[in-house]
Amino acid sequence: MKSGLSFLVAALRCEIDELDQLARTSELVETIGMLVHALQRERGISNVYIASRGQRFGQQRDAQIAECQGLEEAVRAGFDLLETDARRIGNGTRLFSRVAWVVPGFDGLPDLRRRIGAMQLTATEATAAIAKLIAGLLAVVFEAADGATDPEISRLLVAMFNFMQGKEFAGQERACGSAAFASGFNDSARQQQWLHLIESQERCFQVFAEFAGDPLGQLWASSQSGTQIAEQERLRRIACAAPAGMVLDAELSRTWFDCCSVRIDSMKVVEERLAADLRALCAQKIARARIELQTREALLAKLIREPERSGAVFYDSHEVAGSGGAVDAPARTQPPGVAAPFGRQLERSILDMVQEQSQRLQAMNDELETVRSALNERKLVERAKGLLMAHRRLTEQEAHKMLRQTAMNQNRRIADVAESVLSMAEYLPNDQASGAVHRS
Amino acid sequence: MKSGLSFLVAALRCEIDELDQLARTSELVETIGMLVHALQRERGISNVYIASRGQRFGQQRDAQIAECQGLEEAVRAGFDLLETDARRIGNGTRLFSRVAWVVPGFDGLPDLRRRIGAMQLTATEATAAIAKLIAGLLAVVFEAADGATDPEISRLLVAMFNFMQGKEFAGQERACGSAAFASGFNDSARQQQWLHLIESQERCFQVFAEFAGDPLGQLWASSQSGTQIAEQERLRRIACAAPAGMVLDAELSRTWFDCCSVRIDSMKVVEERLAADLRALCAQKIARARIELQTREALLAKLIREPERSGAVFYDSHEVAGSGGAVDAPARTQPPGVAAPFGRQLERSILDMVQEQSQRLQAMNDELETVRSALNERKLVERAKGLLMAHRRLTEQEAHKMLRQTAMNQNRRIADVAESVLSMAEYLPNDQASGAVHRS
Repeated sequence: MKSGLSFLVAALRCEIDELDQLARTSELVETIGMLVHALQRERGISNVYIASRGQRFGQQRDAQIAECQGLEEAVRAGFDLLETDARRIGNGTRLFSRVAWVVPGFDGLPDLRRRIGAMQLTATEATAAIAKLIAGLLAVVFEAADGATDPEISRLLVAMFNFMQGKEFAGQERACGSAAFASGFNDSARQQQWLHLIESQERCFQVFAEFAGDPLGQLWASSQSGTQIAEQERLRRIACAAPAGMVLDAELSRTWFDCCSVRIDSMKVVEERLAADLRALCAQKIARARIELQTREALLAKLIREPERSGAVFYDSHEVAGSGGAVDAPARTQPPGVAAPFGRQLERSILDMVQEQSQRLQAMNDELETVRSALNERKLVERAKGLLMAHRRLTEQEAHKMLRQTAMNQNRRIADVAESVLSMAEYLPNDQASGAVHRS
Repeated sequence: MKSGLSFLVAALRCEIDELDQLARTSELVETIGMLVHALQRERGISNVYIASRGQRFGQQRDAQIAECQGLEEAVRAGFDLLETDARRIGNGTRLFSRVAWVVPGFDGLPDLRRRIGAMQLTATEATAAIAKLIAGLLAVVFEAADGATDPEISRLLVAMFNFMQGKEFAGQERACGSAAFASGFNDSARQQQWLHLIESQERCFQVFAEFAGDPLGQLWASSQSGTQIAEQERLRRIACAAPAGMVLDAELSRTWFDCCSVRIDSMKVVEERLAADLRALCAQKIARARIELQTREALLAKLIREPERSGAVFYDSHEVAGSGGAVDAPARTQPPGVAAPFGRQLERSILDMVQEQSQRLQAMNDELETVRSALNERKLVERAKGLLMAHRRLTEQEAHKMLRQTAMNQNRRIADVAESVLSMAEYLPNDQASGAVHRS
């Protein structure tokens, strides 16, 4: 028969376990960030390689592939480690589903690279293939953020996910622009895609800045100035603002690639700083929780030595009626100045501790829901896009454009439009079997 | 280096673990239901005992205490079992905090019973004390419902929590009425409390009916007719509709207690049926997931025997660009009729499985959020009440009445009013130190 305090200790042990797990997941997220960075670079190089019919970047490509392979091994090792610990992971079911999606992508990389080397793929196809793998890796990061149970850590993971996603849009923009310049012309479909990528990355960096807090937000802002950024803006204007079909100076391909790379590399600095902050935060929280655990275990030991407790303090104040306590621990109702009888002090302090813990958990849970709502909005938009793609045979970009256009026309937020679309799912034309699979 | 399928197996193992844990938690909820029922009866009996100055129900009280003690042991054993398995419990931190709050309540019961036996407490004080313990037990059930990761199980746990909470309001009403009749008069404060209890239980049973589904809802509806129910309504009218301060026939105390008890016992039948449904659902889900696990493990074994996979199918379709897949697994884009090359069938079927699993998890998660929103509303109302109690020195009933009155005046839902109150927290007068404790 265990005492109340021993369950308080159990609660704290659960919390420490969760924090330990979050620390490991955060480390994995950091490694994924490095791999994504390397894959983005490989994609950019491969594009120039394909567009130049193998004339340029052949050597850089080999070196970059080697770097990617090393990082892929590190991420795979992180996945395997996660699996060993599977049963302690809160949202393990969803996290592992995402991992299960990514691993075949790793398995297929050698073949994909061979086909790119033999120029059996167009630049667009190569970009889409690597983008698909990166999207899978980002989905793992998304689940890591969504599964976090500590609001401050969750906040940084949400910032991290959005930063990585924004950076991926920037990487896709580099690839898209490289292909355009290297091929020597631009068309309206590519211009539209290009503008979509610019807009999408800005949206992500906004969310990042909101959640990452001041020092990181300022680091990010200050990294977004300088001559390279100005040069990138100038090239964006040349390619996107000009009439479609115009001839582009193929020599600008290198300039474009270089100034995009400077910008993306500056992003990597911010990402590394964010990862370091995340690591420090996890360590700090774990250390703090361990100290609290020691305090409580010492108290528990004392309680076991002095077992003549009556437990009567629980009923010391009867003013609090039933229903409120069903969710919140009842507020302290003992009038100030009325000292508890001697010998009840220990029991009283335990009850106080339970109440404080309940209130702290409540406050944490509230904040966690606020942080997660940023992810929920994203889920809504993605689900609405998926629905439109399936039911109206749209591409992802068309679906996104449709949502955005509706939002602009109706002066509503895109997440609200997405919600409307989802609630109207039954009214949409059914061009093909719906994707929703329920286990019957 | 593990394959994609082995992570799919890991995901399924996590799911089975969660279901196993849910089955154990559901069992504990059932035992808590039995203990709450017995405590409610003890409270009713104690009230008559106190109000009759020890003339009535002395013997019944002893028998009832013995029954409660047996069930308390069972619940404690369930808590201990839970603690052994602590690290696998999703929301363990919050669940154990609730348990930590309840256990001192158990410890204090012998002393409380002694004081009731010696008539050192009024009927109101005795009711409030036992109500406080029951509220703590219901808070454990609430966390069990809130921590459930399967939407169908969560649905039944939400129904269960609301049913138990409604039944507790009915139990408080029995105690309140027993005390009123036995004392021979009624006053306006008690009348108001009485009406509040009637309204609160109706609200809970509505939510129960919404989540429990048809057969149980009908069982509940059909149990709410008959002569005993009509008699209870008649006594309610006599006591509540009459002018305050009127003399009540003390002989009606027994009649009131008996017809309330018939109603509450009929609730117990519904609760037991709900518990049985919950048990069956858990068992069925676990069995189904185990069969699926076997299928996948067999496939995994086959994959290990035939390791010459290239993984190339991942990139078979390049149409899907990056960002969509970040949240949803990309939809299948292979055109119908285009057969995958021979030998890739196994890999393709694994990728299909991953996609189906992702879509299933997404659908489950969506439904889970819908179900949980029923609990979120309750959290909002409880938090708003707590805030008003702390800042305006109101009792719980006064706080509830204030919220309800505002909702009626403004023609809004009570949960929306609660949300407004919480968002205005900073503007509320600060009569005493705020209860919110953040770990700094």
